[in-house]
Amino acid sequence: MKTAFVIFGATGDLTKRKLLPALYNLEAEERFPKGFDVIAVGRRNLDTSLFREKAAEHIRSHSRNKPKQEIWERLQRKITYLQMDFTNPSEYRKLGEAIRGNDLVIFYFAVAPEFFETITNNLKKGLPEDFKAEMRVMIEKPFGHDLTSAASLNRLLVNAFGEENIYRIDHYLGKEMTQNILFIRFANTIFEPLWNKDYIEQVQIISSERIGVEDRGNYYERSGALSDMLQSHLLQMLSLVAMDMPDSLDTEAIRDKKVEVLSALKPLDAEDLREHLVLGQYSGAGEIPAYREEKNVAGDSKTETFVALRLFLDSERWRGVPFYILTGKRLPEKKTEIIIQFKKFPSPYNYRSDNLLVFKIQPEEGVYLRFNAKRIGVGDEIVPVKMDFCQNCEVGINSPEAYERLLDDAIKGDAARFTRWDEIEHSWRFVDTLKAHKDKLPLRFYSPFTWGPKEAREMIRRDNKFWFNTEDEHENP
Amino acid sequence: MKTAFVIFGATGDLTKRKLLPALYNLEAEERFPKGFDVIAVGRRNLDTSLFREKAAEHIRSHSRNKPKQEIWERLQRKITYLQMDFTNPSEYRKLGEAIRGNDLVIFYFAVAPEFFETITNNLKKGLPEDFKAEMRVMIEKPFGHDLTSAASLNRLLVNAFGEENIYRIDHYLGKEMTQNILFIRFANTIFEPLWNKDYIEQVQIISSERIGVEDRGNYYERSGALSDMLQSHLLQMLSLVAMDMPDSLDTEAIRDKKVEVLSALKPLDAEDLREHLVLGQYSGAGEIPAYREEKNVAGDSKTETFVALRLFLDSERWRGVPFYILTGKRLPEKKTEIIIQFKKFPSPYNYRSDNLLVFKIQPEEGVYLRFNAKRIGVGDEIVPVKMDFCQNCEVGINSPEAYERLLDDAIKGDAARFTRWDEIEHSWRFVDTLKAHKDKLPLRFYSPFTWGPKEAREMIRRDNKFWFNTEDEHENP
Repeated sequence: MKTAFVIFGATGDLTKRKLLPALYNLEAEERFPKGFDVIAVGRRNLDTSLFREKAAEHIRSHSRNKPKQEIWERLQRKITYLQMDFTNPSEYRKLGEAIRGNDLVIFYFAVAPEFFETITNNLKKGLPEDFKAEMRVMIEKPFGHDLTSAASLNRLLVNAFGEENIYRIDHYLGKEMTQNILFIRFANTIFEPLWNKDYIEQVQIISSERIGVEDRGNYYERSGALSDMLQSHLLQMLSLVAMDMPDSLDTEAIRDKKVEVLSALKPLDAEDLREHLVLGQYSGAGEIPAYREEKNVAGDSKTETFVALRLFLDSERWRGVPFYILTGKRLPEKKTEIIIQFKKFPSPYNYRSDNLLVFKIQPEEGVYLRFNAKRIGVGDEIVPVKMDFCQNCEVGINSPEAYERLLDDAIKGDAARFTRWDEIEHSWRFVDTLKAHKDKLPLRFYSPFTWGPKEAREMIRRDNKFWFNTEDEHENP
Repeated sequence: MKTAFVIFGATGDLTKRKLLPALYNLEAEERFPKGFDVIAVGRRNLDTSLFREKAAEHIRSHSRNKPKQEIWERLQRKITYLQMDFTNPSEYRKLGEAIRGNDLVIFYFAVAPEFFETITNNLKKGLPEDFKAEMRVMIEKPFGHDLTSAASLNRLLVNAFGEENIYRIDHYLGKEMTQNILFIRFANTIFEPLWNKDYIEQVQIISSERIGVEDRGNYYERSGALSDMLQSHLLQMLSLVAMDMPDSLDTEAIRDKKVEVLSALKPLDAEDLREHLVLGQYSGAGEIPAYREEKNVAGDSKTETFVALRLFLDSERWRGVPFYILTGKRLPEKKTEIIIQFKKFPSPYNYRSDNLLVFKIQPEEGVYLRFNAKRIGVGDEIVPVKMDFCQNCEVGINSPEAYERLLDDAIKGDAARFTRWDEIEHSWRFVDTLKAHKDKLPLRFYSPFTWGPKEAREMIRRDNKFWFNTEDEHENP
């Protein structure tokens, strides 16, 4: 089965930082099928040997492993550079020539979202009529900027390629510990019986970054944290944590259960919103610019760089259990964690700290259980301790990048770690409601490297809870 | 409250190795009440200053902490040596003088069991009639050598001191992780809902030693592993693992629940026995003597140095769940662990390794959970991994010896970590049945530093199980 992997945007940032290193590591693990070729499509005036030279540099800078010459030699022989303007339909004949004779062609759209439509239309029109290969398309988020635009993009893609050939990327689904959520929940006896409203007090999903918007102001002004993080990564993680056990491991069986969660998100109307949503924007301090001072950002921008959200699921399993989501830029650290807090249980051992199960998604990868034990020594004091499993702590352990997993899946035709249209549909429907009422909510400013505006803390304090992994934790162990 | 702590057997081995170091460490932690004195009673011709000199040496050799002169100075001022023959009633007047004026006197019987009765009788007869202090007695195991002798000893003690003043020592109850079993079970939400026949497949209690009988042949010939380990330490650990949650943390509330377990031990009659009990004795190899070649051991001894037992509890919680107990001398390593294996759970993730919760009692102290996760990397292989909490692994952590805890408890009058008469009664009743039929069972010989006779393995294999922590584990992960 001869396979071509076509990258639109081969000289762009994503290709440099993620795709080329992922291709290198897959080559190192000999994961490519026989007859696998990479066609790097770009507008720039390069030839294959120049592109290969630059590619080698990018791999050296960005790969998790120090590249070995012999593996690189194997990979570079697979790579061809194709100079073309992908906005021009007439240039697709060149592409048609380049991929002729393949049984499978995977198109990777590593370009700005405004080109998704153009490329799709041009592929449809521009490829030779007798082109018969199986075609898959891998498409980066954002998938639309609201439900309407997403639905329109989706119609176009489904029309051109068919739903089963569309691999909508949410790279969080390729991260080791995101993948592990389902394994840990369902390949063990001890978690599932406790995984419901009878035993779980609350769930928190916290995803923070230290960096600001950097040079992505243009894109971020139109998305903000609601679209950039919540609609995609955070609701995806929520669906994995909250979904019921699938009947099988088939892609569609798993996705069906995820969709059940996303369709059970309790809609928040304008009145509810003040008790469920806090939006913030980082201000500046010293040499750290405020969001409004960043490049390509309006001086009076109302874009949110911080979201704190309180939501509920309308399902038997989760009725009444609050899910809290916090995400933002310019917070004190880069960290993504999912925290399951268990309910207190009536016991003569009058313990203070609740049990926690914590999935560490990044940068540390692992899972730990916080439980209570007797403090060592003569005395009966109860203290919280951790049973810890750290996936990437051992020397020499080097987790694959999400993109390695996702490329490998798409080549194999396994779409389980990609989002299905109805997942996107429900996510946008929920996020669109929030956005619709956004203007009625005050935008709260927060100092850089703090855990966001005080209103986020006040929101959760009204439930007698606190954000884990924030300064509050020290007061409320 | 002036307190005297009287050690009968002050020049004996237990005093040297355990009691003096424990007294030192309690002094270091300033745990003694004001006006606390130690009266060391021995037959040998020593005086207080000579005894103190020797005590200092023993503490240096056996204490978990390097002794500090200043603490030792404080302790030694509390110690007096009293030379007397405790088998001679007329000498108890001396003792009466020495302890006069105390409000509380704790008698510690650190002597061979045949003297328990003598000392009790002599104390009753020999102490002055106007002696009014509150008296407690701490008594080492073995408490009797069967139910009849234990009951008779008990009557005598209760008569002399009253049940509430008898502190029957099982030093396993003073070990950090044995104490922690109840804390971990009942000061957490996540364990108790799973702690029953619906979720637990089996429980194993494994307590192995590398040493042989050493110089204890005399005692061991009359006890064997059934009395030496099973009746006391192992059934005590079983009762902590299996008991229901107590209504309160009162000593008697906890003991009541332990007794419920011990009284629910399903009696094994002669017919059952072959499927439930394997007895072994170590043979020799090279320079390692066989048990029958040890000092003070009969050349045709039938004493068991190894026990493998399969038992059931007749209770709602545990109906049908097998408990397996394995103990022996001359096994490959010194280790005591309690292993809870959870049942397999129907899941599309077809996992092979069951979940385990393991209490590490000694020499390592801690608890770990074995669960399944995705193997790191591109691929979906499920592998068992450990979440580990090691209590004594950190540098500088130095668990108190069991005796520190037990002495401190007895001084304070807290008897929860001592065994009540009815616990002993039920344990002996169960063990007596085994001993009654013992002669009908073949004694199996095993090579030193192996996991006992093959029949122990065959017994558990009939249940499609294997012993954890034995060579079988590698075949059956």
